[in-house]
Amino acid sequence: MQSLSVTLGERAYPIHIGAGLLDDARLYAPHAGSATVAVVSNAVVARLYLERVTRALEQAGVARVATVLVDDGEQAKSWTGLDRVIDGLLAARCGRDSVVVALGGGVIGDLAGFAAAVYQRGIPFIQVPTTLLAQVDSSVGGKTAINHPRGKNMIGAFHQPLAVIADVATLDTLPDRELRAGIAEVIKHGFILDLQFVGWLEENMGRLLARDRATLEHAVRRSCELKAAVVADDERESGRRAILNFGHTFAHAIEAGAGYGEWLHGEAVAAGMVMAAELSVRSGTLRREEADRIRALIVRAGLPAAGPGLAPERYLDLMQVDKKAAGGQVRYVLLDGLGRAALHAGLETRLVRESIAAALR
Amino acid sequence: MQSLSVTLGERAYPIHIGAGLLDDARLYAPHAGSATVAVVSNAVVARLYLERVTRALEQAGVARVATVLVDDGEQAKSWTGLDRVIDGLLAARCGRDSVVVALGGGVIGDLAGFAAAVYQRGIPFIQVPTTLLAQVDSSVGGKTAINHPRGKNMIGAFHQPLAVIADVATLDTLPDRELRAGIAEVIKHGFILDLQFVGWLEENMGRLLARDRATLEHAVRRSCELKAAVVADDERESGRRAILNFGHTFAHAIEAGAGYGEWLHGEAVAAGMVMAAELSVRSGTLRREEADRIRALIVRAGLPAAGPGLAPERYLDLMQVDKKAAGGQVRYVLLDGLGRAALHAGLETRLVRESIAAALR
Repeated sequence: MQSLSVTLGERAYPIHIGAGLLDDARLYAPHAGSATVAVVSNAVVARLYLERVTRALEQAGVARVATVLVDDGEQAKSWTGLDRVIDGLLAARCGRDSVVVALGGGVIGDLAGFAAAVYQRGIPFIQVPTTLLAQVDSSVGGKTAINHPRGKNMIGAFHQPLAVIADVATLDTLPDRELRAGIAEVIKHGFILDLQFVGWLEENMGRLLARDRATLEHAVRRSCELKAAVVADDERESGRRAILNFGHTFAHAIEAGAGYGEWLHGEAVAAGMVMAAELSVRSGTLRREEADRIRALIVRAGLPAAGPGLAPERYLDLMQVDKKAAGGQVRYVLLDGLGRAALHAGLETRLVRESIAAALR
Repeated sequence: MQSLSVTLGERAYPIHIGAGLLDDARLYAPHAGSATVAVVSNAVVARLYLERVTRALEQAGVARVATVLVDDGEQAKSWTGLDRVIDGLLAARCGRDSVVVALGGGVIGDLAGFAAAVYQRGIPFIQVPTTLLAQVDSSVGGKTAINHPRGKNMIGAFHQPLAVIADVATLDTLPDRELRAGIAEVIKHGFILDLQFVGWLEENMGRLLARDRATLEHAVRRSCELKAAVVADDERESGRRAILNFGHTFAHAIEAGAGYGEWLHGEAVAAGMVMAAELSVRSGTLRREEADRIRALIVRAGLPAAGPGLAPERYLDLMQVDKKAAGGQVRYVLLDGLGRAALHAGLETRLVRESIAAALR
């Protein structure tokens, strides 16, 4: 097991990474107390892991473990899904000293985390991510949210977990498509922050796709480390944290334009990163051969390097309502060289349109 | 104009109290910037004040003022009401640098404040309370929430405003019943914190009910001062802040039991305080003549001193799911003498049942 810390003062918390951590009672014990714990999950994940997690919580001294199951998939991140969780917490008579455990992928983490953020004005929660995407990205940093028909993650809160327990053994059963979607965020962390990690990924992509456990563990650990440092610097995304959104302005347009759930988030991010790399080249901050390296790694990971064939104007429309639009002006995360991201505003719409057009199916 | 400050470090904010402040552009100017401002209100309040507030915001330099209207009354504090506000903010293309202005009573403040708390993971807001209850209580302290069929204020956030602008001239048009409901929270602040203020209220209740402006201004100011000190001490209600809930555990049961909207919150608090005073007497912390003084002041304010005639067991049921239940055990705010409140746990259910029964219609 490897452990690292997200240094956020009184909201600091540990991230534990390793195989078989899911039912390690010692990791739950510091947060157990005598309170009720509500495990939020979906039927697929619950069938695989709920019993083990419940047993570990009981061993850790939790008096009562309740379960709240929500629908599988992105559509759970809705008012209906949120109400289902809140209703479950109320039915279980959870109080302010109760703890929510988010057991599942990014959807469960975002939804259960947001429910915890607003239940009785906020109760604590623990992230137990069971997908690569959740382990390397969404479970770390305290962003929680649900979607609105007008835009993804439009309703949410910053709510840091008490702990993140990333059991890489859960990745054994992950569908290939979801594994690749997670790899998209792993390589993103390299692109924006760590050229050396990009090199490591180029060397180890085969082992990563083959789910070699040590390789997975290193990929998760390095991703979490890179992300945690950015989050510690700018918890509420008033500035630098926005670099984590590299490719995401485009990705949100892809997800919304294709209809939520059609594209996995990581797939949309992959194609979005190709567009953002194109934009970086056209803006003069990235060399063409660096963008080619980005595209090549995405393709090697089996990820889409082009977005759905909507009109570029439709993309631009969808991007206007994206929440990263500040004062009506969309800011873009560009690469000032591979491994070094920065925010840019005031880009010519023409360049953005061309960059989208250059990466369509 | 009188101004005081809620001292909460980087979340500190001013409360301005006076007649005619509603359209004082100077009070909005520090928070205007060049952003979009969305005024959230209802049709009744908007007819009276929206134009003036909009003009003041424009004078203060706001580039674009949007309006979002919601239904009148407690039922607006629902998923539907929240979605209406969020949808309005999205339709107005509000970004992270937009500001919400909550123009109205406690319902508007709670709803618009919560919408601001979760819109794009949190944008700032300004409270412009137009009822006495909102001016002396709900607009101060950052509590925002909506209701759930299983309990009042079950879904919410702590989200401090940028400023509170309490224009006592708006109280001129307030229906009598709502004025009295506000007075319930004013006298609560005396009961729990300030014996001298109780004396002042006993002397000045006539002038208060007659809406003498100087008397109103003092009542609002002293209430805000008392509440602000408690909030500054314990922002997220991990301890002492709970004394502000004196009478509220009973009040929430009254509101839920009678059906939301039947009783005004302040009316329920009045009857709830009589029950809590009864419980204090029966627990030996308050003298009978002090409880009589509480009851007498409530009656003089024209407020109900007894709850609806439900079975006491029904009250107890409703109180179990109240959010102040910690670990399944309901804690009560009792008076350790008039003007001095404290939290008590582990009270005998028999005493609680008797106290309810002693204050039923």
